[in-house]
Amino acid sequence: MKVVITGGTGFIGRRLAQRLLQRGALAGPDGRETGIDELVLFDNAPAQPPIPPNNRLKIVTGDIADRDTVRRLIDASTGTVFHLAAVVSGQAEADTDIGYRVNLDGTRAVLEACRALGTRPRLVFASSLAVYGGDMPPAISDETPLTPQTSYGAQKAIGELLINDYSRKGFIDGRCLRLPTIVVRPGRPNRAASTWVSSLFREPLSGVEVVCPVSRESVMACLSPRRLVAAMERVHDLPGERFGYSRTVLLPGISATVAEMVEALRRAGGEAAVKRIRWQPDAVIQKIVDGWPRAIVAKRAEGLGIHADADIDEIVRAFIEDDLSAQKALVAAG
Amino acid sequence: MKVVITGGTGFIGRRLAQRLLQRGALAGPDGRETGIDELVLFDNAPAQPPIPPNNRLKIVTGDIADRDTVRRLIDASTGTVFHLAAVVSGQAEADTDIGYRVNLDGTRAVLEACRALGTRPRLVFASSLAVYGGDMPPAISDETPLTPQTSYGAQKAIGELLINDYSRKGFIDGRCLRLPTIVVRPGRPNRAASTWVSSLFREPLSGVEVVCPVSRESVMACLSPRRLVAAMERVHDLPGERFGYSRTVLLPGISATVAEMVEALRRAGGEAAVKRIRWQPDAVIQKIVDGWPRAIVAKRAEGLGIHADADIDEIVRAFIEDDLSAQKALVAAG
Repeated sequence: MKVVITGGTGFIGRRLAQRLLQRGALAGPDGRETGIDELVLFDNAPAQPPIPPNNRLKIVTGDIADRDTVRRLIDASTGTVFHLAAVVSGQAEADTDIGYRVNLDGTRAVLEACRALGTRPRLVFASSLAVYGGDMPPAISDETPLTPQTSYGAQKAIGELLINDYSRKGFIDGRCLRLPTIVVRPGRPNRAASTWVSSLFREPLSGVEVVCPVSRESVMACLSPRRLVAAMERVHDLPGERFGYSRTVLLPGISATVAEMVEALRRAGGEAAVKRIRWQPDAVIQKIVDGWPRAIVAKRAEGLGIHADADIDEIVRAFIEDDLSAQKALVAAG
Repeated sequence: MKVVITGGTGFIGRRLAQRLLQRGALAGPDGRETGIDELVLFDNAPAQPPIPPNNRLKIVTGDIADRDTVRRLIDASTGTVFHLAAVVSGQAEADTDIGYRVNLDGTRAVLEACRALGTRPRLVFASSLAVYGGDMPPAISDETPLTPQTSYGAQKAIGELLINDYSRKGFIDGRCLRLPTIVVRPGRPNRAASTWVSSLFREPLSGVEVVCPVSRESVMACLSPRRLVAAMERVHDLPGERFGYSRTVLLPGISATVAEMVEALRRAGGEAAVKRIRWQPDAVIQKIVDGWPRAIVAKRAEGLGIHADADIDEIVRAFIEDDLSAQKALVAAG
């Protein structure tokens, strides 16, 4: 079968693609392990850096909100779609129209293309902790009401509602994952308001200075890319009946203060790494970060066999093993 | 200022229009009581039955999902929009495309037209208890998570998210009301899965036979049109700051079993009225109704000065006083 990853040349899409090519199969629409003949990474621009070629891999560029484009992408041979394409939080907040176009119209285009197949393809949607906001309990859970305080969060919550409705009606067999902050992202900073968390580890470990825009007391709930990809595979392969009335699963994450992150950086990279942090408070980012959940109780995910990293050190170790040499090469290339 | 009511020739729109013409004013965008120069009822078809003319009243027909139409409707003189237009639950479930077109695209067209004004008009959106569903607590509250089990419920939940986001960004000054079942609706049955509740009182009191498709043990949370219109005026006029992180207010309602409704009918219309009920179970409707909340704890609404009817008898009395003679004329006209 064909598998499509939207936003496929982004950091998570690449990581997921790598894993799917390695495994070579996923649960098919009938639930049985089915070989992946074709893996299509769809994105709005060519892959940068380029992705190593593979005879099962195809890269397609286009506009996710264009229904014809998406319908050509998700054709009759498509058994699964991982829908990761999104405008990130900072950009969706600054540009309302682009945010709604990509994050809402784009999601609807994907869902309509899946529905048109009539084969009830599986779909995994990347939602976000940004669906929570406002007056939150000390730890958020699957039952915490959704009161997003960003356009990005509203758009992700809307995507969840659409995927639940389309699944209930039998148009797709969907699952939504609420992602905590994924750390450590390789590459360059992006426009997400959380981008500094990854930078805090990535830059000093690669020998580069970094600006930390938030206080040492700031807390983030984090998950490593390794754990995220494992969770995506897991929810994809579980039978739809396991999800009951809601196709949405809050992913687990471990909570750490910035001070604790700095200590983990010290253990991994020594005092030299810590000295590369410059503390330069940014009130706008601090306010956004303060509005995010500080801790996660993800009972539903745990019941489905999805687990968080043991500690921040495990997260840093995953980065060093999976990404540091490529990151150093990127830095060296300038 | 100009006030627009979408879905304005429907039952609630008419009732609200009548009240606004009588009062002649509403809080303006600056919060001060402002005269209503023009009241526009927008709907997809001419008013049936016709609405008595009034020199401040204008009726406009068109497609709520057509952005140009809605932009002409909501022009620079518009201070307030009551957005009631919707495809009802039964129809949105049966026809997915029409449901999303009217209930989602239509709401977006209204919000974009309001945003384009740049004056932050007030907007009151009619949401629904249908946003709840699945595994619900015995009584739903403002904090109950939204897991709608109908397309209509999903579309209303999406509307709430959009109105909250547009309000937070300062494009509009919105409020969303989650309506319980509004009883007694005059006129003819519609395609809502709850239409039988109104029929159960309306038809026997007008001398007409009625089919009850659900069991005597079925429970509904109900609110009278009088109380609903009062709630709409109230949330409209409150300053936006009163709503905090969420512009959504769950309305109160009183819970009654069908057996209790029948007793109230007996008190109002005697044994003759009760004998006009034919019991004819419909498994589809019973299943939908069983999935709805059985009771409401609406602390937030009460804190804002919004109250439910005292009992079912108050609801029946309101119908007899406000609507029964017109209903009998409708029946006589055949």
